[in-house]
Parts: sequence; structure tokens; C-alpha cells
Amino acid sequence: MPLKVVVIGGVAAGPKVAAKIMRLNPEAEVTVLEKGRFLSYAGCGLPYYVSGAVQEPKDLMSTPIGVVRDVAFFQKVKNVKVLNETEALEIDRAQKRVRARRHGEAADFWLAFDKLVLATGASPVRLPFPNAHLENIFTLHGVQDAEGIKALVSQAQAREVVVIGGGLIGVETAEALVQCGCRVTLVETLPQVLRVLDWEMARLVERHLESHGVRVLTRTQVTAFEGTGRVSGVLTSQGRLPADLVILGIGVRPQVDLARAAGLQIGSTGALQVNDRMQTSDPDIYAAGDCVESRDLVTGQPCFVPLGSTANKQGRVAAINICGGDDRFPGVLGSTVCKVFDFCVARTGLTEWAARQSGFQAVTVIVPDADRAHYMPGAKPIMLKLVVDASSRKLLGAQAVGPGQGDKRMDVAAMAITAGMTVDQLSKVDLCYAPPYSPALDNIITAANVARNKLDGQVVGITPMEVKQRLDAKEDFVFLDVRSPAEHQQERLPGSILIPLGALRTRLSELPKDREIITFCKISLRGYEAAKILQGAGYERVRVMDGGAATWPFEKLTS
Amino acid sequence: MPLKVVVIGGVAAGPKVAAKIMRLNPEAEVTVLEKGRFLSYAGCGLPYYVSGAVQEPKDLMSTPIGVVRDVAFFQKVKNVKVLNETEALEIDRAQKRVRARRHGEAADFWLAFDKLVLATGASPVRLPFPNAHLENIFTLHGVQDAEGIKALVSQAQAREVVVIGGGLIGVETAEALVQCGCRVTLVETLPQVLRVLDWEMARLVERHLESHGVRVLTRTQVTAFEGTGRVSGVLTSQGRLPADLVILGIGVRPQVDLARAAGLQIGSTGALQVNDRMQTSDPDIYAAGDCVESRDLVTGQPCFVPLGSTANKQGRVAAINICGGDDRFPGVLGSTVCKVFDFCVARTGLTEWAARQSGFQAVTVIVPDADRAHYMPGAKPIMLKLVVDASSRKLLGAQAVGPGQGDKRMDVAAMAITAGMTVDQLSKVDLCYAPPYSPALDNIITAANVARNKLDGQVVGITPMEVKQRLDAKEDFVFLDVRSPAEHQQERLPGSILIPLGALRTRLSELPKDREIITFCKISLRGYEAAKILQGAGYERVRVMDGGAATWPFEKLTS
Repeated sequence: MPLKVVVIGGVAAGPKVAAKIMRLNPEAEVTVLEKGRFLSYAGCGLPYYVSGAVQEPKDLMSTPIGVVRDVAFFQKVKNVKVLNETEALEIDRAQKRVRARRHGEAADFWLAFDKLVLATGASPVRLPFPNAHLENIFTLHGVQDAEGIKALVSQAQAREVVVIGGGLIGVETAEALVQCGCRVTLVETLPQVLRVLDWEMARLVERHLESHGVRVLTRTQVTAFEGTGRVSGVLTSQGRLPADLVILGIGVRPQVDLARAAGLQIGSTGALQVNDRMQTSDPDIYAAGDCVESRDLVTGQPCFVPLGSTANKQGRVAAINICGGDDRFPGVLGSTVCKVFDFCVARTGLTEWAARQSGFQAVTVIVPDADRAHYMPGAKPIMLKLVVDASSRKLLGAQAVGPGQGDKRMDVAAMAITAGMTVDQLSKVDLCYAPPYSPALDNIITAANVARNKLDGQVVGITPMEVKQRLDAKEDFVFLDVRSPAEHQQERLPGSILIPLGALRTRLSELPKDREIITFCKISLRGYEAAKILQGAGYERVRVMDGGAATWPFEKLTS
Repeated sequence: MPLKVVVIGGVAAGPKVAAKIMRLNPEAEVTVLEKGRFLSYAGCGLPYYVSGAVQEPKDLMSTPIGVVRDVAFFQKVKNVKVLNETEALEIDRAQKRVRARRHGEAADFWLAFDKLVLATGASPVRLPFPNAHLENIFTLHGVQDAEGIKALVSQAQAREVVVIGGGLIGVETAEALVQCGCRVTLVETLPQVLRVLDWEMARLVERHLESHGVRVLTRTQVTAFEGTGRVSGVLTSQGRLPADLVILGIGVRPQVDLARAAGLQIGSTGALQVNDRMQTSDPDIYAAGDCVESRDLVTGQPCFVPLGSTANKQGRVAAINICGGDDRFPGVLGSTVCKVFDFCVARTGLTEWAARQSGFQAVTVIVPDADRAHYMPGAKPIMLKLVVDASSRKLLGAQAVGPGQGDKRMDVAAMAITAGMTVDQLSKVDLCYAPPYSPALDNIITAANVARNKLDGQVVGITPMEVKQRLDAKEDFVFLDVRSPAEHQQERLPGSILIPLGALRTRLSELPKDREIITFCKISLRGYEAAKILQGAGYERVRVMDGGAATWPFEKLTS
């Protein structure tokens, strides 16, 4: 008897499981049920379809050589039967069958299975307002959403846009709509956009959004929608925002209704609980993709991080196990990357905030540096932050913001965290070097070395946030800028005085020995040199400000 | 008594050691001896100065904010005394002193040390011809070489250039000179350029060089130079090549004369032997950079891989140990990256060839794929090769060639090799995914999965080289192209027949069951699907050609 598999969900994990099963077991009978019309579409590509970077929605549903992955494709090429516009309504675990109904048809039907795969995905959260379904309020979840937004924008019916939610989707969509010529306001409840970053790193992104014309309102609650029939405004704790178009990007929720009704175990995150073989609490029912929770590889805790990359990996694991193999999905690091205009914004592992929440004694460094040899045309800065466990010296997390190639460094960091590397080990890895691709010491190696200096007590750091608090409290310390006069002139940090590094040894008499000195430069390499000079000259209370002027997240004075 | 350190060599590792020592021990007295005029210059940047991408030689000698690292800089900023144009002549180990002489001065002088650091670098190999020093024969090793070449080129006195040696320097310089308007012939003794790659990967680079007008002559010996006073031609086993300018890029040799004369241990590679603390056989004498040999992290064997990145890391280790710390340099992977026009060419770990030489049973895969979501504008292909140990399933090496971002994938591979990861582990790592940065399954994860399929017997591969041999020997097999008719029409592999994948299930009767079938497509994903269909239909002898038509290194037929 051929193996009978039913897969519920035809977007990401589902088709992957189905195709892989057929490759492993060509005799199998695999049926995919998808309630929507479209199959195997790249949901993550939707903002790029809205912006026009991707021209046709079918590009998001095609193979690399342009064949649309429709029902016929799955039948012909994969020998997988797909029923789209068909909703699964009930799982009968006892009799191992699924009840389903095709859209527009009155009759249900039952499908028997030996193994069932739940790849039901996640659905966007909506606001609980009475008029939350006014026209022109969209999420950006499916192809239809994107088409709807695009239609409005292209007919110039949406000039004022309010994007609610400063997460990945919100930020990507804000960029897309600016590129369509809209005036975009991004509203976020939290004190920052992109919770995947620490506050000061998110500040850099907010500034970048603002420099491209996005109005960013953090710490702002949306209280109501205005409009009759179609939306005309958004009421917030910061006042009314006019709106022809509202995009909701406040997160997604795993679709687990079917699973819950069938008595399958739901995890603490609200997503389906699976073991590392992708089995639910019923060993004949597997699950993969945006409907399941994963294990955070750093903390060991369950987490809900829905991503197309993870869905693909989990689908493969489920398929191998369904076909009698033994494969394991170990978990995730929360690795994330996001294009924000010409910035690459990325992180992996724990943020400083999350590390402290999880009980780690975290040491952090912020190292801004060019992404290739600084003398190469096209070298671009990356602000790189590392979060390191003080006791084990292991890398816990990393963040990168800036126009430089931060994605590469985050992937290296992800590998280091996965391997449990200390910053000492990371500082020695043989990464590829040539001037067009990296500095002689890659950014992440330099950052690892700065972390080692901190861990070894070679340098005592202070965060810009702490410096700002001290400045605001008018505490008594010397805030010493050791950049060049020209750099100081162009952009000064409040309360700072200037002694260029090259003159420091000869001008020590200007600095009191009884006050604390906090040094900085542009990126804090010279700041570090200055601290070493001061320490060598007998100054005992010297600190170096993390990240230098380049990552100072507060106001700067310009001439 | 302050610690007295003498450092011989002021280009890469030397200044690093000196500066780090002063930061760790501000009381130390560090003197750097450099026989050349220029300090701390980025030798790896010289081809980009020749091409004009870097405008001024001083850019290669400056800090990121444009301060030239000259003698005054080292004194003022680092408190390091540098004697340039000063050659070390003798190491007196018994009395712990170095004899040196300043250029143009008659008298030698002695410098005492507690610790000595040898950072004497490497010097370019020259050909042993009687007229090897004709004018206009250059190496590209120092700033003066670059200035000399640039002068000739900018005065249009060098139209015909012969670059001897197809290594990194040769290839980079060939590109630079093409960009200067020269006609460049690249001559290499071996059957391929870039020995850091396997043959078929190097073939892709050769074709790319040729497509940019570089004439590539492999398996070609240089036998003599022609010319009186200045070079006018190069005689080779393939005939005479006219030449106004000759660049020698046939490698470098570690400068170990001083060390050898002092009785320090020289390793099997001809470079200085050091332990992982960067100590030579004399525990008070350290060495770092291009004059020392490293340990290959995969084989454990000594190797000589001179690189600026390694020099910097080793310099830091030496400095920490000199100052009483304990730091270790574990070794290298031979990670390399090189820009060849718009190709990124990179590798890390062992090539297939080197793996077999070292006794590994290597399984390899070649996976050509776009470097980001295929529907994104700007997605570019990478031809990715992995070399995997069949018994441990660990990644041994990786290579990337193509316009896509191969450097990122090689850094991930370098991390995987360093961590001793199996391809099974590598296939699950949580790399950063968003459509502008990678496919949902990153290239290296897909390649790891293909390797797993091979290791698990899910697919039986065959290299293009083997296929070619069989074609040449007129062996009896079906060479099955499963691409679309349009793709087949545009570019065909010799001897292949076409059945598009989508039609395969219905056209099985056209394929004999008693002959071996070798399938392929553009990148061999469809080739793999086809093989699975054939296997499912009872075909027993089916193989998939590695890398598909995209990496076929031989002639293709075009319509």
C-alpha cells in the first residue's frame, strides 16, 4: 500500500514537504489542501512587488526559470495532487482522515491519511476596533493584499499612508510605499521600531527612515480609525493622522484552530508544539512552518519566529521523517535581515535586552567600521554590535545596521553562536580577505577583539545611553573627543571637549587626574588609544564610549 | 626596567605587534626596523592603485580618517619608535641584540632587546633568466612597483602586457591592466589559473577573464625574455609574446635569511616555524606574518599562506604573549577571495584535489544558484562547490565563482569548517534571510542538502569531467537534458537529447531501461527531479551531472 500523506497548507512548508516526500518515496500519494488560490508564493517578496522592484505577482510564484507553480505544475513535475481553494475543516485523528470543502461547493469530503502534515501558517493580527474593516485598511500577507495596495497606489488614490507597527513588515512596507510616492507615517507602540534590535541600534534605523521621508512615531498608540466606508484617518495618542491607506503590520498569529480542535498540544507561545522531528503530540501528525514554535538555540526556550527560511528547513525534516528517515531540526537563532532603503539591518541570537532578560551577564561592544578596506571605493560603514556572555565569553548575539554588507557579518555571527564559539575563537577565524570584500581584519573579528579587550579589563566601556544620563544629570566628568579638529567642528557631541589623539601625549596637563574621563572618537578606536595613553600616564578613571560619535543615538551639534 | 622589544619589519604584522604591545604595556620601549621607506601599507591594495580604483598611494598608507602612518604618526600616536630605511643585518641571540644599518650610512649599530619579533615578510620570486632584470619587468610587491607600472601605463608606454603567473596577484593585476587599456596575456605553467580552486571552477574564471579580453595561456612555460635594456617580448612554450611590460606573479618566498643565519628553526614549507603562541625555536624571539608557516586547520599539516588578515591576527597573538598573556593562533583554512572583474572568486578549506591528496574520501557537489531570491532585481548567480568527507560528513572545503556574493557563503563555510560541522548541521543553520540578501534556503544550505542527498544515496552524481571522458570515448549512455526547449535551443551540451522535465513522466517510453541515463538541467535541480522520476519508474542506472549546464566547463553548442 502506498504511503498516503495529506498536507494542509500550500504556501511554504507544505509544498516543500510534499515535493520532498515524492523524491524520497515516488510511490507515495500526497495531497495538498490549500484554502487560498495561490500556491508556493514568496510571501516575503510582497513588499518588493508593492514597490515595483518585482514586476509581476507571478514572479513570486514561479520557479527560477519562470514556470508558475500552479496545480498543473505540482501534478506534472512533482506528482503531487494539490487542491487549492479547498479548506480543511476537521482532523479526525481516530480514523486518520481530514474533512475538507472546496470553495463554492456545498459538500464536504473526507481524505484518509497515514501521515498528516499541518502547514497552516500564520495570519496577520488585526486591531479590535469596530471599524477595523473599513476599506483601504490592509495587512500585507497575501498576494491579494499586495494587489489591493498596489491598485490604490498606482491610481494615486493613496497619498497619505499610515503604517501601523514598526516590525519587519511595517518597515519594509514603509519603504515600498515611499518608493511609490506616498507620504508615510510609521506608528509604533514601543519606544523603538524593530524590536529585533536593541534601542540604540533601532535609533539608527529610525533616523535612516526619517532621512528618507518616513515620519516615525514611536511610543504611539493607535486608538481608532476614522472614516465611513473607507478609512480617512487614524487617531493616535499623538493626535490624528490623515490616511488614505492604512497598512497593519502588527504581527502574525499562528493558525492553530484545526490543530487545537483536534486536541494537539499548543505551546506556550501559542503556536503548535513539535519535537525536533517536527512531530506534534500525535506522532502521525507532523507540522512545519509559521504555525509551529521553535526552540531558541541560545536560551533553549520555545519561541515563535515565523520565517520562510525556517519553514523550508522544517518541511524537509518532516518529509525525511515521514519517509522513515531520522532528521532533526535543532532550533533557531532569530536571525533576521531587512533592507531599509540603502541600509542593511540584521541581527542574530540575543539582543542585549533579551540576554539580560534571560539572566546572562552580557558584555556588549559597538564597533562601527567600513565593510571593506577603507581605501576602496564603495566601502560603506556597518555599525556592528556584539552581545557576549561575560562568564563563558561566548557570543550570544549580534546586530548590524548601516549601508555596508551587514548580512555577511550576521551570517558569520550566526555560525559562531551555533557552534558555541567564544569571542576568543571568533577573533581567529580565517575569513576570506581581499580589499574589495573586507578590511584585513573583518568587522566581526575587530568587534570580537574589542569584546576581548573589555572582558580582559583592557578597556572599560560606557554606553552612549549612560553618558547621556550623566550629561543630563550634570555629573562631573570630562567628555573627551580625540578626533581631528575638522571632525569635531563638523559634528560635536554635547558637552565634549577636543584634544586630538596625536596631541594628547603633549597636552596631558590640560586634563585633571581627579575626574573621570570618558573618551570617544568617530568609531572609538582612537578613543581606545587615548584611554590607553591616559592609563599609561597614571589616569585611573578612564572609560571609552561604545561606538563613538558614529553611533551616538542622540542629538549632535553641527556648525 | 621597561620591556625592550625590537620588531623587524614595518608593513603588516610588525606595526600590529608594536601598537598592541604599547596598548598592553605603555612602559615598553618598542623599536620597529623597516628596510623600506613606507610603513604599514596595504600591499593587497596595490592592484587597485594600479587600476585607478584607489587614487593615491598614500590612501594605502593612511588610517581610515586619512592620517598617513609614517614615522611621526607611530611616535606621536602609538609611542613606537620606527626606523625606516633601516635594515636588520644580524641577530645576536646570545647577547639579545640586533645589528642594523640605516640606508646610506656606513656605520652599523646594535639594538638590545628582551623580546624580538620577526615580521620580515615575503619577497616575490623572480625567474632565473640571465636578463630577468630587464627594464619594465615588475613584480607587484611594494608601492614602488605599483608606481613604476602605473607610470608606464599612464604614459601609454605599455600596451602589450604579459602577466606571468595565474595566481591571485596575477589575476588581480591582469584585471587592473585591462582597466588601464592594456592588452593582457596571462601565462600559467599549470593546466589552470588560481590553484586555490579545483580545475572546473578555475575554468569558469578563465572564461570570465577571456570574456574581458584577457588572453589566458595555461600549460605554458616561459623560457626567456627578449629585449635589450627594456623587455620587448616573452618566449614561451606556446611561442613568442610581444611585451612592453611584464608582471611577475609567480609567488612569494618567506624572507627567512636573518632567522636562518641566527639558527632559528625553518619549517618544511621554507617559512619560519612557530608554535601557536607565535614563538620561534628561541622562546624570546617571536615571528608573525608572511615569514612564518601556519597550520592547516583541516589537515593539521604545516602550510605557507601569506595574507594580510593572518598577519594581523598573528601580530596580536605575539603581542599579547610578549606582554605576559597567553593567546594562541590556531591556524588557517587557506580562505581566499579575489575579485575578477565582476566575478567574486573565493574558496576556503581544502579543494577536492587537496582533500584527495590528504587521503580524504571526498564527496563533492556543485550547486549554481542565484545569490538572493531569484525574482529580485540584481540577483546574480554563484557557482558553489562543496567538498565533504564521506565518512565523517564534515565539510572540508568550499569554492565559489560567479557574479553573486560568494564571499558571504565562503565565510559561512569557513565558520562551518572551523567548527567541525557536518553538512547535516550546516543544512540547518539559521542564516539571515530576506529576498534582497539570499534565497529562502541560502545557497550554502541548498548545497549542504545536495551533499546530504549524495551521501545518503538519494542521488548518484557524476562530474562533468567524467561525462566528457565518456562522450569522448563514445560510451553508450543517454545524456538527458530536462530543461525547456528554449533553453536547450539556446545552448546545448554535445551529445545530449531533450525531454523537458514536465513531459518526462509521459515520455518515459522514449528512454531505454537498459542504458545508463545521465540527467542534467541548468543547475541540476530539475536534473535531480528527473532522476527521481526515472528511479521511481524502475530505471536503475541513473546519475545526475554535478552543476548542470551552468558549470559545464567544456564547449557548448549554440544555435
